[in-house]
Amino acid sequence: MARHLPQSISQGQPSVKHALSVTREQDFAAWYQTVIAEADMAEESGVRGCMVIRPWGYGIWERMQKLLDEQIKATGHENCYFPLFIPLSYFEKEAEHVDGFAKEMAVVTHHRLIQQDGKLVPDPEAKLEEPLVVRPTSETVIGAAFSRWVQSWRDLPVLINQWANVVRWEMRTRMFLRTAEFLWQEGHTAHATVDEAMDETLKMLEVYRVFAEDCVAMPVVAGEKPENERFPGAVATYSIEAMMQDGKALQAGTSHFLGTTFSQAQNIKFQNAEGQQELAQTTSWGVSTRMIGGLIMTHGDDDGLRVPPRVAPYQIVLVPMLRDTDEDAAIVEYCADLVHRLNQLDAFREPVRALLDKRPAKAATKRWGWVKKGAPIVIEVGSRDVAGGNVSVIRRDRLYRADGKLDSQIVAKDDLVENAVAMLEEVQAALFADAKARLNGAIDDSITDLDALKAYFGASKKPGWALVQWAKPTGADLEKVVQWLKGEKLTLRNVPSDAAPADGGCIFTGGAAVERVLVGRSY
Amino acid sequence: MARHLPQSISQGQPSVKHALSVTREQDFAAWYQTVIAEADMAEESGVRGCMVIRPWGYGIWERMQKLLDEQIKATGHENCYFPLFIPLSYFEKEAEHVDGFAKEMAVVTHHRLIQQDGKLVPDPEAKLEEPLVVRPTSETVIGAAFSRWVQSWRDLPVLINQWANVVRWEMRTRMFLRTAEFLWQEGHTAHATVDEAMDETLKMLEVYRVFAEDCVAMPVVAGEKPENERFPGAVATYSIEAMMQDGKALQAGTSHFLGTTFSQAQNIKFQNAEGQQELAQTTSWGVSTRMIGGLIMTHGDDDGLRVPPRVAPYQIVLVPMLRDTDEDAAIVEYCADLVHRLNQLDAFREPVRALLDKRPAKAATKRWGWVKKGAPIVIEVGSRDVAGGNVSVIRRDRLYRADGKLDSQIVAKDDLVENAVAMLEEVQAALFADAKARLNGAIDDSITDLDALKAYFGASKKPGWALVQWAKPTGADLEKVVQWLKGEKLTLRNVPSDAAPADGGCIFTGGAAVERVLVGRSY
Repeated sequence: MARHLPQSISQGQPSVKHALSVTREQDFAAWYQTVIAEADMAEESGVRGCMVIRPWGYGIWERMQKLLDEQIKATGHENCYFPLFIPLSYFEKEAEHVDGFAKEMAVVTHHRLIQQDGKLVPDPEAKLEEPLVVRPTSETVIGAAFSRWVQSWRDLPVLINQWANVVRWEMRTRMFLRTAEFLWQEGHTAHATVDEAMDETLKMLEVYRVFAEDCVAMPVVAGEKPENERFPGAVATYSIEAMMQDGKALQAGTSHFLGTTFSQAQNIKFQNAEGQQELAQTTSWGVSTRMIGGLIMTHGDDDGLRVPPRVAPYQIVLVPMLRDTDEDAAIVEYCADLVHRLNQLDAFREPVRALLDKRPAKAATKRWGWVKKGAPIVIEVGSRDVAGGNVSVIRRDRLYRADGKLDSQIVAKDDLVENAVAMLEEVQAALFADAKARLNGAIDDSITDLDALKAYFGASKKPGWALVQWAKPTGADLEKVVQWLKGEKLTLRNVPSDAAPADGGCIFTGGAAVERVLVGRSY
Repeated sequence: MARHLPQSISQGQPSVKHALSVTREQDFAAWYQTVIAEADMAEESGVRGCMVIRPWGYGIWERMQKLLDEQIKATGHENCYFPLFIPLSYFEKEAEHVDGFAKEMAVVTHHRLIQQDGKLVPDPEAKLEEPLVVRPTSETVIGAAFSRWVQSWRDLPVLINQWANVVRWEMRTRMFLRTAEFLWQEGHTAHATVDEAMDETLKMLEVYRVFAEDCVAMPVVAGEKPENERFPGAVATYSIEAMMQDGKALQAGTSHFLGTTFSQAQNIKFQNAEGQQELAQTTSWGVSTRMIGGLIMTHGDDDGLRVPPRVAPYQIVLVPMLRDTDEDAAIVEYCADLVHRLNQLDAFREPVRALLDKRPAKAATKRWGWVKKGAPIVIEVGSRDVAGGNVSVIRRDRLYRADGKLDSQIVAKDDLVENAVAMLEEVQAALFADAKARLNGAIDDSITDLDALKAYFGASKKPGWALVQWAKPTGADLEKVVQWLKGEKLTLRNVPSDAAPADGGCIFTGGAAVERVLVGRSY
């Protein structure tokens, strides 16, 4: 892997030479891949469409899992585990759901291999009577379980979640954003009434919004997806949409009100308090490793990734500047003591995660490695620091001074310990504030005709989104809108829950508008 | 599901009527299935060989994951994630490994479904050029990654772990013990020298031993497996073996020294300090959801499961005895306050996990539900308890008094809080001590000839194991021994690391013995 260290920075040039070989401005897509490689997040696996998630990328996912799992449990859900394989017959029961996924399902047809002409092949004698699909999502197989669990209104609600891998055979893949296999959590619930199921759908949407904003420091717009963007089988789909630095939208989490679609298909019936049989109302909701792609494109800069402290595997990394001299032992000891003291602290109601990087490499290489990985605070300690009781502190959210030099501050060791928690809170807040300002500044709600809409998206490379008024057409009328947008490489994102009421005409049909919908390019 | 409540116990009969419909003595296999059903651990999924792990079962797995993961990280390993699918060509490179797994692999051959005569079928147009195997274990695909990561001796060791699902198409399945899909962690490491790789192999075996004994309270015997029981491709395989209550052995974790088998197949080479190319020495080691089967058969009794506090999702469960009267609110408040106080405590260096069970069901039903689930401490609170400032405490490890009555102790609320941590520690220690005494008492090391061995295993229903001296035959000589044992439904378990040196003749060959090996029935 090419190492590209901006040595020039410490030589005092005013113009910054950044750590990555490509900037966001030059080529956003290439920059994204470069961040993933240089931050040791993930790599191609050699297996089509599947990636290897490396320790730093997986560590971020573990942090996301922990924080989101706490909220999923705090809202009354329990974790379970359901089979990876789903019999075809389960899918046949729900036509719309099948249509949505049939084109991209991995199908298991055999259960044994044999040698033939020196090559391994599926054994024709070991063909499955009924092929199995590798789950693309688990509504059908979890619905089958719910039908066993639910008999009476007393058994409701059922509030379940699973952390699992799923497979969708995407033809064009992109690391974290769209991979054949990905990791996610999928919540599945069953309720006695429409109101309860809808409350659940919106409650989990709000859990996702708070998670994205408070933990990932990624501002999002929560709202309902238009009909054409619904999950296959859903009555209503809600999403959180985040804006990437290139202005494109990333759907970062969805919550579906499924009505009785799957309770009909899987026979989830209960006896109500009046003794009558009713179909349960179900929901499902999911967040995946895609969120990591969102984190990269929200917070990354031309020096690599910047990880918000709450989801950083390590929040503070200490790099001892060793020179193969007698002083090395004292430096390491000094650092070890500091790590010990930092790890005693609590930030965000959890113990601080500080690391002493003792690997046998040059301090500058290690420093830039952690900058590219986006550790929130990097601390360097040399023999002069030890003598003076100091450390050199680099904050990843503000790497350079106005003159373009690296902003490395010398701070007394005790002051660092005193201020470390506040500093982590500042980094978290600063990353969110930056992204929030960018989002707010990049939604144009003044566009009222299609020419202006075309001009907005045609004018610049990074137009952001348009919030337009529309009549919420359905069926063929909606399809016409969707096709027109497709011609402009645009999509409908969602109808923001907090948008102002409509007060004008529909930008697409000219009729009276009923609500405002977000339009944008998207991942 | 049939509810079988031993109401008779509280009516004071001296002979205990247990909560399960079948006892261990009557039918151990049926008892095992009954515990799993009555403790809401898992159920058949309708998908061949795959189970649904329900919240209580999955909650135990989450506890195991947390505690084992801490140790895996404390010993320097990092978590990653590798693809679910493995191309056939990866397997072709290592013949012995293929032979071990080819007979039981799920094979993906298509990536799309189409409708045909109203049925879903794999699309013949969407056949994969190279079929993919659903990973039965990941040596090959992780080895391919290691070959990219390792260039120089400076890149070693590589210390990686992943938590994942794997699939082995077993024809005869049994929940938790042998399922087509199961959950596990698999550690994979690469080293510069044989010594380092062997140290790693034995270090992780010790991590497993300590985890099994200290966390799951399941005593085990750690040792090397004989040649015929090695992992396909391993140079040496070590295991921890636990004794179930029916005397059978359960292999509960394995650690493999793989030598250069996989570095040859996957080309994991490094330049050593002298500038020469060398093959890396690799290891792998795994613990799976099988451990939950071991927990059940180690600690379960005729009233259901008994979960050691360290791996119990909830350690203390409060059951308010409500009667639809005005007093109910005060009882619930009293319990909520108690749960709050208990959750402030630390046991085993973690916060105590106490739960208030507010479900709308009868207190007796709830009490027996938690007894069957094996919550370590169940506390009942009625209006008289509230008035007196007391609670009624049931310890799951000693459910009955000598006269057969339920041993429910009235304790002052403050005393409970005072003693809760000590009580949890006592339950943990008592479960281990019981199992340890059973294990120690059921290994016969006095058997020196095959007739005596036959007699030992033929004599009683629960013979335990025999520790016999042997000459450690190999190849065809070993095969002869294995076949003879097979005729007696016996297997070689392992050569205990802490066994006394051999000092007699080989029980199988009559030659001089070189070590002692465990013989037993097994799962």
